[in-house]
Amino acid sequence: MELKEEGCPIGSSLSDSGTIVAVTEDECRLEGQGAEKSSTKKVFQTLQRKVLELQRVLMDHFFRMTSQRVQSLSPEDQQRPQGSWKWIKRMGSLMSRMANLIWAEATKELKFKEPLPRSDPRCDIKAGQQALSSWQPDQPGPRLGGFEAAFVSHVLSRRGTGICDLYRANFQSYEAYQRDKYHKEKNPTGYINLGTSENKLCLDLIKERLSQRDMNQIEEDLLQYSDWQGQPFLRKELASFLTCYCRAPTPLDPEKVVVLNGCSSVFSSLAMVLCDPGDAFLIPTPCYSGFAFSSCLYSKVELIPVYLESQADSSFSQLTMDILELTLTQAKMKEKKVKGLVLVNPQNPLGEVYTRSMMKEYLAFAKNLPDPNKTHMIWGTSKDFGISGFRFGVLYTHNKEVASAMRAFGYLHGVSGITQFKLCQLLQDREWIDQLYLPTNHSRLRKAYLYVAKRLEKLKVPFFNGGSGLYVWIDLRAYLSPCTFDQEQILCQCFQDNKLLLSRGRAYMCKEPGWFRLIFAGDQLQVKVALDRFCQVLKEHKKDPRLKQLEPAIAT
Amino acid sequence: MELKEEGCPIGSSLSDSGTIVAVTEDECRLEGQGAEKSSTKKVFQTLQRKVLELQRVLMDHFFRMTSQRVQSLSPEDQQRPQGSWKWIKRMGSLMSRMANLIWAEATKELKFKEPLPRSDPRCDIKAGQQALSSWQPDQPGPRLGGFEAAFVSHVLSRRGTGICDLYRANFQSYEAYQRDKYHKEKNPTGYINLGTSENKLCLDLIKERLSQRDMNQIEEDLLQYSDWQGQPFLRKELASFLTCYCRAPTPLDPEKVVVLNGCSSVFSSLAMVLCDPGDAFLIPTPCYSGFAFSSCLYSKVELIPVYLESQADSSFSQLTMDILELTLTQAKMKEKKVKGLVLVNPQNPLGEVYTRSMMKEYLAFAKNLPDPNKTHMIWGTSKDFGISGFRFGVLYTHNKEVASAMRAFGYLHGVSGITQFKLCQLLQDREWIDQLYLPTNHSRLRKAYLYVAKRLEKLKVPFFNGGSGLYVWIDLRAYLSPCTFDQEQILCQCFQDNKLLLSRGRAYMCKEPGWFRLIFAGDQLQVKVALDRFCQVLKEHKKDPRLKQLEPAIAT
Repeated sequence: MELKEEGCPIGSSLSDSGTIVAVTEDECRLEGQGAEKSSTKKVFQTLQRKVLELQRVLMDHFFRMTSQRVQSLSPEDQQRPQGSWKWIKRMGSLMSRMANLIWAEATKELKFKEPLPRSDPRCDIKAGQQALSSWQPDQPGPRLGGFEAAFVSHVLSRRGTGICDLYRANFQSYEAYQRDKYHKEKNPTGYINLGTSENKLCLDLIKERLSQRDMNQIEEDLLQYSDWQGQPFLRKELASFLTCYCRAPTPLDPEKVVVLNGCSSVFSSLAMVLCDPGDAFLIPTPCYSGFAFSSCLYSKVELIPVYLESQADSSFSQLTMDILELTLTQAKMKEKKVKGLVLVNPQNPLGEVYTRSMMKEYLAFAKNLPDPNKTHMIWGTSKDFGISGFRFGVLYTHNKEVASAMRAFGYLHGVSGITQFKLCQLLQDREWIDQLYLPTNHSRLRKAYLYVAKRLEKLKVPFFNGGSGLYVWIDLRAYLSPCTFDQEQILCQCFQDNKLLLSRGRAYMCKEPGWFRLIFAGDQLQVKVALDRFCQVLKEHKKDPRLKQLEPAIAT
Repeated sequence: MELKEEGCPIGSSLSDSGTIVAVTEDECRLEGQGAEKSSTKKVFQTLQRKVLELQRVLMDHFFRMTSQRVQSLSPEDQQRPQGSWKWIKRMGSLMSRMANLIWAEATKELKFKEPLPRSDPRCDIKAGQQALSSWQPDQPGPRLGGFEAAFVSHVLSRRGTGICDLYRANFQSYEAYQRDKYHKEKNPTGYINLGTSENKLCLDLIKERLSQRDMNQIEEDLLQYSDWQGQPFLRKELASFLTCYCRAPTPLDPEKVVVLNGCSSVFSSLAMVLCDPGDAFLIPTPCYSGFAFSSCLYSKVELIPVYLESQADSSFSQLTMDILELTLTQAKMKEKKVKGLVLVNPQNPLGEVYTRSMMKEYLAFAKNLPDPNKTHMIWGTSKDFGISGFRFGVLYTHNKEVASAMRAFGYLHGVSGITQFKLCQLLQDREWIDQLYLPTNHSRLRKAYLYVAKRLEKLKVPFFNGGSGLYVWIDLRAYLSPCTFDQEQILCQCFQDNKLLLSRGRAYMCKEPGWFRLIFAGDQLQVKVALDRFCQVLKEHKKDPRLKQLEPAIAT
């Protein structure tokens, strides 16, 4: 057999380890025997490759077309084969027939029995939304009869295909933004992202501070494997920093600090050590969508929403003991094993700060007694310092067992030594933080909030912000008719078509359609342009035939 | 109910999000009623806390005592309740009785019915070694009747306890080293680590290069969330770098490059997308222990060893088609679903570089045809550039589906923007790499190898190195009597008692006891001191009564 060499780097002039994972071929059986076998096989393989390529193109195209529609389907809609769901199904069926035709054409000259490869769960549209909330990558992906045998993944496992879907559902628009970012001169028609919670207001200060001389020291220790719990110098600084800024009654202990690459990594790892698969956390919703993503990927912990209700004035109900008790009781009736309560302070996306007495109540609910040994705190610099690109998160836990178990995750979620060093230098410059950074950040946040608030008021778009955070939670229910998640998705897509990213309520497990999170802590000019686009979309959406009973809410 | 406030940071003066996971209390039922309930409960809780503390101390102590012994037990030994295994069991039983006694004493004054809390799988010693190779953190931890109810974890899940065990088994000695490192003047009796594969020979060059002006640029983009696949500028540079140094016949495509925080993260994520839980990879052994650790933690992919055999001259058999075919056949007979073959080039710990023709054979075995679309390459800078502290690994795959699925992992395994920038600057300085770094690294590696080889030859310790890598694979079978993994562990512990870390064969899934990996690419002075210690240990070990039939192999 002749071997092809194209494109596969199999030699290295470097002394080091390259790891190669070579996947075993799915078995292909030929009817040809003996001498003919080899050449027939080659033809077959070439053809197979071509068909698979074609199928992949079709599949990608189809997936792109439908994936946004999928997100628009509420569970009820998915039950009814009508509307856009009907369209998707028809398209799927067509694609399926095309793929089969190509396959038949490609293989009829060859005498082999090769079934169409196993279906790609990616094409399971029906289960789309449910997949987002309840799908577990380890389990076989969902299937749908009508699409079977249409699409193919010869390489990804079922879990891999599921992960691919999960990622696309969560990050597709974010990727579009990453590849086509707005720039005043270079790309004025690019995407503006008010959907990702980033604080860009003080990047000038941070950049300047990080460029100072003390930041660029390179000690040899920083270049080598370190303590998987985090560099001791950084853990020491974090203990001191959090003691000070969280006003801890007694000094925090560096041995109980665990450093990983981002708050989501910390949350995911904590869920791994506190819960077994299938266990659950209660979480007040609307809530940050990243929790669901990381839970699906690794820990398999179910997030049970504690629904906060919208009020007549577009504010939201506070988290009360009653609703916590009720949700817990309902969960227990369903035999859920609730292992904890997740609180984000300030609440994301509502921006409310829990008071000391509220926190005590919640902790009492969770454990009958606010027991420091069972309360674990996660903090990061992404929001306070606007350096999400540092990929840094920290756990503080009084519980040594938890701290000890969490160390295991440093191996796969570690932060580079030089980044840990810079963080330490930044956090220990209290004068810069207190005198310059925090006051400037505070006043700029306030100014940015007031600007957005004014624009939204002018548009007569109701919104809510509890007094903190980087976002407003806006009420676009008046623009949905009927007020369904399907319509919410269509509106979201309209924003995206106009190169504006906002986060929609459904991704935040909001109970009710029509809510969006808008980040106001962005570049001043970009926020202005974004709000112009926002206004334009609402104006046009008003005329959209899909919106039958629009309230006359726009006053431009 | 009065609330305690000690030590729990529940307020923040910063505007940002702290996430708190509060764990619900295990249910405690009291018989006391009404007015008495509250004070009885308090007394109960105080006592319970004290007892749990005591149990925890006992448990930690017991675990420390036994965990090293556990590692020394071969599966056969674990079947036979004799020798050190018998001792461990007796200790466990004693501990169990003590804990029960304390519990009874602590509770007899109180009128409540509280069973001893559920057992901690950590105390399951019997399954220790099996756990290391086959335990899956998601499954209930192993149990052993005699120890039940002796130890307690009120907070960790069974999975969490298992992760804790897995980490300790893999990293306990490494942690001891991290906390007590050798330093010529400051800590001459500290640990020297020749167990972790790091190249420290050119840290001076790297440090100097990383301190140059071009490294310290801070662009705002680096401080924000980025493309989860890796910063585009770095992916572009990596494609060009790998095209050049791996001598790829056609230029590699930046869209098929995925950047994560370390090669182990890349391997783990790749296993997630290529395999379903329970699927298997073939891997020639002895092999790097990190593969097993990351497989246990997340992907649940089984590693099936393809055993390489030691030869009379202490070299190892090469990986042949016969042994690959045999292992695959045996795996299929056991109904294992083999999804790929993992090759590390150069082989770690044997240091052999697979030739082009060997690689072609292996790829042909894996897929009937060296198909670039099913061959995925992992590379990192830890070994070639000695910067393991950068936490950087890269996947190159021709398969767009795989590249696409892998993007999902950037969210939880991302690298900080500033680190990505420095890496890019480093890799694009080809003049520095080719003219200064590579030649210097090569000559220093050679010198370091020759020094270690000379010392080992003088000691008459046979060793093997296939011509590459940072390590020699040394044959200490003559120092084990009987030649068991139990004895291997005892010898390993002797090295550690003398503050010297080496990696033992068992952790590398070596078939035969008595082999150790020794890293020669360390600081020159430290390697010298380490070899003095090594020599001392072998000399003393000779007199050890546990070693009955020692070959007179030492000539000091």
